[in-house]
Amino acid sequence: MKATARAPANIAFIKYWGKQDEKLRLPLNASFSMNLSGAFTTTTVEFSKKYTQDIIEFVSARHAELVSASKKVYRSRNEFGMIVARDEKFSLEEKNRIIKHLDLIRAKAGISAMAKVFTQNSFPKGAGAAASASGFAALTMAAATALGLALSEKELTMLARIGSGSACRSIPDGFVMWEKGTGSESSYAYSLYPSDYWDLRDVLVIVASEMKKFLSTEGMSYVQSSPFLQSRLRRIPEKINRIQELFSRKDFPALGELIEKECLNMHAVMMTQAPPIFYWMTETLKLIHAVYEWRAQGLPVYFTIDAGPNVHLICEAKDEQKVIEKVKQLGIAKEIVVNMPADGTKIIEEHLF
Amino acid sequence: MKATARAPANIAFIKYWGKQDEKLRLPLNASFSMNLSGAFTTTTVEFSKKYTQDIIEFVSARHAELVSASKKVYRSRNEFGMIVARDEKFSLEEKNRIIKHLDLIRAKAGISAMAKVFTQNSFPKGAGAAASASGFAALTMAAATALGLALSEKELTMLARIGSGSACRSIPDGFVMWEKGTGSESSYAYSLYPSDYWDLRDVLVIVASEMKKFLSTEGMSYVQSSPFLQSRLRRIPEKINRIQELFSRKDFPALGELIEKECLNMHAVMMTQAPPIFYWMTETLKLIHAVYEWRAQGLPVYFTIDAGPNVHLICEAKDEQKVIEKVKQLGIAKEIVVNMPADGTKIIEEHLF
Repeated sequence: MKATARAPANIAFIKYWGKQDEKLRLPLNASFSMNLSGAFTTTTVEFSKKYTQDIIEFVSARHAELVSASKKVYRSRNEFGMIVARDEKFSLEEKNRIIKHLDLIRAKAGISAMAKVFTQNSFPKGAGAAASASGFAALTMAAATALGLALSEKELTMLARIGSGSACRSIPDGFVMWEKGTGSESSYAYSLYPSDYWDLRDVLVIVASEMKKFLSTEGMSYVQSSPFLQSRLRRIPEKINRIQELFSRKDFPALGELIEKECLNMHAVMMTQAPPIFYWMTETLKLIHAVYEWRAQGLPVYFTIDAGPNVHLICEAKDEQKVIEKVKQLGIAKEIVVNMPADGTKIIEEHLF
Repeated sequence: MKATARAPANIAFIKYWGKQDEKLRLPLNASFSMNLSGAFTTTTVEFSKKYTQDIIEFVSARHAELVSASKKVYRSRNEFGMIVARDEKFSLEEKNRIIKHLDLIRAKAGISAMAKVFTQNSFPKGAGAAASASGFAALTMAAATALGLALSEKELTMLARIGSGSACRSIPDGFVMWEKGTGSESSYAYSLYPSDYWDLRDVLVIVASEMKKFLSTEGMSYVQSSPFLQSRLRRIPEKINRIQELFSRKDFPALGELIEKECLNMHAVMMTQAPPIFYWMTETLKLIHAVYEWRAQGLPVYFTIDAGPNVHLICEAKDEQKVIEKVKQLGIAKEIVVNMPADGTKIIEEHLF
């Protein structure tokens, strides 16, 4: 009745913004992402009659340090991963969302016991670094495993999706496609390529670790107010085809161009919603301008930005050190998380309690 | 054979971005603007056989000071206007564009004499503060007057439009509509309301006075590459109707909302062009965030941004001082140009040489 899962966050190259079904979190379009080796969530779930209510907590910074020190850190393709001690708290809203997800999994298993959930992130949550993706992926797999549910990967992705849309992309390995689907059973994620297919890097520059003003769930809910949504959606299938083609022949500059274009397309939709959403901070814009400059100087690096101010710098392995150097020179990074393509969500042996 | 004109820059509330005809500068959509009392160009044109070629210069900073000191400064609704001494230069490209425009006016008059053109701005050119609008409006009226051409205001707006699209909006008084038209004769500008109709303010915050990387003429030329252009254009007629309705009943908060929405709409198109155009600098984004904050604190102020990094803060006269105070506290303004609604382009008696 106890299991621990570790799930990577993921960065979308073709983005998810807007739902066709709010409750089932069916997306308005297909999306494509890479799992991140350095940004992950570890979650232990235990169901037991001894708990009179669900207990949902972040492992305290002090406790996290003890855990890191005493237990082996999961390192499969997480060469850069390290657990930074943080004192984070769940809001009441977040706890309720987690409890709702536990209820769903309990219902599937026909079990009513309360749960204790301890979780820990290798990166700050709520700043556009996809903590809800890794969080709900880890929660889903840990809870399902603790309850002995025998689910296929496909079923796990659909279940994770109901918790947080992009969480489904954190379940399979490597480079992952999430099908739009027409109902709950047809909107699932699968690995298009394993993590060792293409040695890309995502140098994630964290410029702000405070909570973003607009949660993506909330911001996404009025996507229909953007005059540009339909034009965006019409072009997604052609982008999905294009990215598969670029992956098949590993054309990095073309991939980079597509990634940036897609990112700006989504942010243009966000900022033309009513009310408009600005996830960018001044540091975000500074990095965008810097990337253009670095590229003009011959460094092949491209940016993408999710629903937050932090910037993901995508490059090939050979340029990773140069990109890190450039970012450090700018002097605006609060943290730099260097990511390789990672496997998906896995059950691990070390529990958080 | 010598005349001097003074023309205001203008700020568009419904923007012009994209042409249906490059040569005639026919716009893809109608636009609507307010003339700016504090941001203006003064231009003296003299045609004479004594010149063997066109001489086109900015008045030097030293000369400008002498002119300001010795001559009466034009102040009709320009209470805030003052001439800041600057040493600006025309690029060869700019000179050629001016010569081309002189050729057009010479052809109309059937005269071939070369011209001496001296000009002076009350604000930095090339940073999205519409110097080409006031510049070509002043040039058109000064040259036409010097050559004794008897043109109606409507004809002057069409002529100015061929020099620089939005220049046509700087010719008529106050709040100006520029009709899209279907040919050169139907795309002209006219005053919808005089300058004293509504006591609005445009607190223009200049955050950068260097030349912008993309001239709007150039950036505009590949507007068709944005996937969002058609969606934008489809909604312009309804915005044009709406702004006329809001002006008729002087609904400031609704006007402000519309202005911001329209500004973000245009910038979303710009940044989804291929290649994307970013006119915003980090200071621009800082001001956008600040405006949201000030409004949350109860100050009714709205932003709009043209093809450059500078931010126009639109408010009512009663809030002008509060807005200026807020901007000063931010500490990012290189210059603040406070504008009332202004009359259009006028012939003045004081020559620059």
